[in-house]
Amino acid sequence: MSHSNHAHDYPACCQPDNGASLGTNATLAEPLSADGTPELGKTYTVPARCGRAVRLKAGEVIRIVNTHGTQVCDTWLFNAEDLSEFLSMEHARAHIDRVIPKPGDELFSNRRRAIGKLLTDTSPGVHDTLIAACDLHRYTNLGVEGYHDSCADNMRLALQAIGLRAREVPQPFNLWMNIPVKADYSIEWLPPVSKAGDYVEIEAVMDCVVVMSACPQDIVPINDLNPVEVHFSVSA
Amino acid sequence: MSHSNHAHDYPACCQPDNGASLGTNATLAEPLSADGTPELGKTYTVPARCGRAVRLKAGEVIRIVNTHGTQVCDTWLFNAEDLSEFLSMEHARAHIDRVIPKPGDELFSNRRRAIGKLLTDTSPGVHDTLIAACDLHRYTNLGVEGYHDSCADNMRLALQAIGLRAREVPQPFNLWMNIPVKADYSIEWLPPVSKAGDYVEIEAVMDCVVVMSACPQDIVPINDLNPVEVHFSVSA
Repeated sequence: MSHSNHAHDYPACCQPDNGASLGTNATLAEPLSADGTPELGKTYTVPARCGRAVRLKAGEVIRIVNTHGTQVCDTWLFNAEDLSEFLSMEHARAHIDRVIPKPGDELFSNRRRAIGKLLTDTSPGVHDTLIAACDLHRYTNLGVEGYHDSCADNMRLALQAIGLRAREVPQPFNLWMNIPVKADYSIEWLPPVSKAGDYVEIEAVMDCVVVMSACPQDIVPINDLNPVEVHFSVSA
Repeated sequence: MSHSNHAHDYPACCQPDNGASLGTNATLAEPLSADGTPELGKTYTVPARCGRAVRLKAGEVIRIVNTHGTQVCDTWLFNAEDLSEFLSMEHARAHIDRVIPKPGDELFSNRRRAIGKLLTDTSPGVHDTLIAACDLHRYTNLGVEGYHDSCADNMRLALQAIGLRAREVPQPFNLWMNIPVKADYSIEWLPPVSKAGDYVEIEAVMDCVVVMSACPQDIVPINDLNPVEVHFSVSA
């Protein structure tokens, strides 16, 4: 865990809003292309603790690879034409009658239509749809002083790096995040059960911007206390 | 179930956006006062299929009563000073390590601080935090033609009736909604397990606007297929 020693002296411009602007990190300077359009078939890296945004045309498929098996990847899908429409887990759950999507399931947007479809999942299918993206407030509450990378910042910065801005940070599809719900409705925070090289494939049902964050959580053991990179590629 | 026979001829002004404006109903014309300030100790009705918004000062307590025992009440808390801060179930779950809050639990906002506190629950504690507010898209997908009341519209209209507007419809705290999560992560849609007269009490930790919707869902049996009214009162 790396964090500075100074207290919470955020400038006024960094006060929280729905866009959750609370700081900056390397994500902002490292778009995969100017507008996020990928080279089809090329393998890209989401570096440890960072985020990336990529454009998919309808019908294209993104493969997201848990290269080391131990990493959570917070994932968002936005309608490329209107970022106020996005994959909404609370609408998706109601559509599939499940907490966790499985291969074949449509991924519903906040307008109750398919924005994507989960095609493939080589892992045991343990993902999370219940827990908000980590943000600086989360780390402050966990005792961190000063800035800490977060999935909320990574989402915002990855979009900004390709010239886009969303007005909120939706509930992510937290790939490989292992949050069991017990019979008494309590939850636990556990390391992933996936193995190195497991991947999911998601088809874009409409033109999309997909954002991924290699979760920097290093206090709660969801990334096995060692945040690392993940990889992805897009195919037609 | 009542709905008109004409097809989906919504005017352009009613196209979906994050404010989810899709229609109107009696909620708009029936604020409990001009700005939502209640008379302390008075019992108010949320009529069947409608919504109401009420202002609470920090420290005041709202009691929401499931008068008939069979009714779901979608409930939202907004920061009265800034409606972009609200009770966020995805942040609340992470704070309490539970899917469903229980008495004593702080209710966290999307800025990871307490906006309310659940004080009392005379029911068996079965509520929902996983399912989005119903909206017209939901009813269209269920086969309804034309307008159908919805919790999303009720929230928007209840705020509008007291001169307010939120820019999104957050995941509600769905009081008494019975959505069991099974071991295989599938969910079911069942009638409430509460009894007539059960109530919850929520304390406002900051100045709040509380919005309630007596859920008009009459196709899926979460309201025992008979949407009815609920009641509430505010005390200092």
